[in-house]
Amino acid sequence: MANIKDVAKLAGVSVTTVSRVMNNTNYISPQTRENVEQAMKALDYHPHQIARALSKKQTFILGAIIPDSSHPFFAQLLKSIEKKAEQDGYKILLCNSLNNKEKEANYVQMLRENRVDGIIMGSHTLETSAYKDIDRPLITFERYIDGIPHVSSDNYMGGQLATKHLIDQGCKKLLHISGPSRLDILSNRRADAFKLTCMDHNIDYTIIEYEYTKINFDYYQSYVQDVVAPYLEKIDGIFCSNDYIAYAIYLYCIKHNISIPGQIKIIGYDNSTFAQVLQTPRLTTIAQPIELMGELLCDSLIQLINKKDVYNQQLPVQLIKGETT
Amino acid sequence: MANIKDVAKLAGVSVTTVSRVMNNTNYISPQTRENVEQAMKALDYHPHQIARALSKKQTFILGAIIPDSSHPFFAQLLKSIEKKAEQDGYKILLCNSLNNKEKEANYVQMLRENRVDGIIMGSHTLETSAYKDIDRPLITFERYIDGIPHVSSDNYMGGQLATKHLIDQGCKKLLHISGPSRLDILSNRRADAFKLTCMDHNIDYTIIEYEYTKINFDYYQSYVQDVVAPYLEKIDGIFCSNDYIAYAIYLYCIKHNISIPGQIKIIGYDNSTFAQVLQTPRLTTIAQPIELMGELLCDSLIQLINKKDVYNQQLPVQLIKGETT
Repeated sequence: MANIKDVAKLAGVSVTTVSRVMNNTNYISPQTRENVEQAMKALDYHPHQIARALSKKQTFILGAIIPDSSHPFFAQLLKSIEKKAEQDGYKILLCNSLNNKEKEANYVQMLRENRVDGIIMGSHTLETSAYKDIDRPLITFERYIDGIPHVSSDNYMGGQLATKHLIDQGCKKLLHISGPSRLDILSNRRADAFKLTCMDHNIDYTIIEYEYTKINFDYYQSYVQDVVAPYLEKIDGIFCSNDYIAYAIYLYCIKHNISIPGQIKIIGYDNSTFAQVLQTPRLTTIAQPIELMGELLCDSLIQLINKKDVYNQQLPVQLIKGETT
Repeated sequence: MANIKDVAKLAGVSVTTVSRVMNNTNYISPQTRENVEQAMKALDYHPHQIARALSKKQTFILGAIIPDSSHPFFAQLLKSIEKKAEQDGYKILLCNSLNNKEKEANYVQMLRENRVDGIIMGSHTLETSAYKDIDRPLITFERYIDGIPHVSSDNYMGGQLATKHLIDQGCKKLLHISGPSRLDILSNRRADAFKLTCMDHNIDYTIIEYEYTKINFDYYQSYVQDVVAPYLEKIDGIFCSNDYIAYAIYLYCIKHNISIPGQIKIIGYDNSTFAQVLQTPRLTTIAQPIELMGELLCDSLIQLINKKDVYNQQLPVQLIKGETT
């Protein structure tokens, strides 16, 4: 493989000049630049980014820690993060925590050892204190940690939109299936909005929680069977914290001759690719701006790396009326 | 941040000894090892992997170039690749080519410049010649390139299973929707098997192609409307090259009062998460062992990096009988 000396020789310039062309650090005449670039091309020379990273103390690599890149929501978020990173000259190291504390901690350490320029934290099984010692730019997705900026959607607004929609459709007894309240994740604001909106309208309500650490459809189906089913006789509307649970409940009801939306109205959350593709039935859901959230996570992290001010960003959500309400 | 000298000082040993503990290169007494490890912990010392990569000429980073990490098939494949990589001490740099030639070429160059230890090539828009100049271990997914090992499923068997199933169900006039035949991708063996199986059984058949570069559901829906619809009057069975197309055809038929599987039988391909979750209807499909393929791609690449022999690997597929045939 050609090295920088070969390029310098072919272009008839010094190694320093080749380095200047690559780094844009000093004035170089257009003719010299062209000679160097042609020599690089002729020799199929590729600058050694690892060596450059060491001398510049910048790797142009970002770590993205998420629960599961195959879950439709995170798959879409990751795609958008990577797209933005590529546009801005950064690369993404993918870390699937599978919502496992130990794995999450190992990834954090690995990313520090590899001197990534910054970390997007979209998995939240560690205690908040664990994030404070990370000595590099950090942005979180949907989690409040003092001193670390976050990108989220307006979860309170989402909870309010969903609950009001069920009430507007005539529901009197509501159930909300929420993530775990013990973790201080911003999506819990949906449950707050649900509770307050029910109270404002004198509506009976119940909130139950699922295990946040399991996010595959099989788990949701057994959760519906074991935990949700006993509630179905007592309620007429359900606000679910994601689309997979909403679909699992729909399937359970159809199988047990509970008419949807006749007897029970169901609303999901996310409007991820799965909900967008599913047409039998079209789910009523709250759409998060997933693509924009991914873009802003990446963009804000790059701003932080460049020592710019970054504030928490909260994006609006939208009700999508389908056939389940 | 603590450096190696601080660790040596606190542990009361030389820098060389600390380095030996980290690299496991020489005999170190258990007591010395413990002292060094305690000092590393006390100082929150993280070895500088970039510097180590430069001296060892190994980065423990693998590049994964795929078309779109949000597509259910590739999302599952990527998850499995990353899981295996993490188990073996490697990291994955994610590259979504979006089936764009230029992007794919840029990613290849970026991965070379970043001296990744090897590349998993799951996107195939470049000509095969472009892969031959890549001066590092390479494995492809579902593509035959002379001299480069690949992992694939048994596409011929999949095509045969699907076609025979439709014929066994009584179909007389079959349609196959294939990827582009001009690219030498191994999934085209499905079309070969379709054609030969139809000929063997004296069955009328037609093969049409979709644009491989677009893999989102909206495109498939318009493709069904514009290209597939005119065939629907003339056929009674369709073998689709992925589950999204099969579902798009199902939706079109339902909307136009064509009964499934009464008038037309539909079989998909992949059994990706989407098909696994979808229960309304359950799609008949050919299941690829996606998780195992991801694991083998990663494992084989690591074998190549370690100068071991690696052969092409072809994994069996399986018919999943759903409600659309």
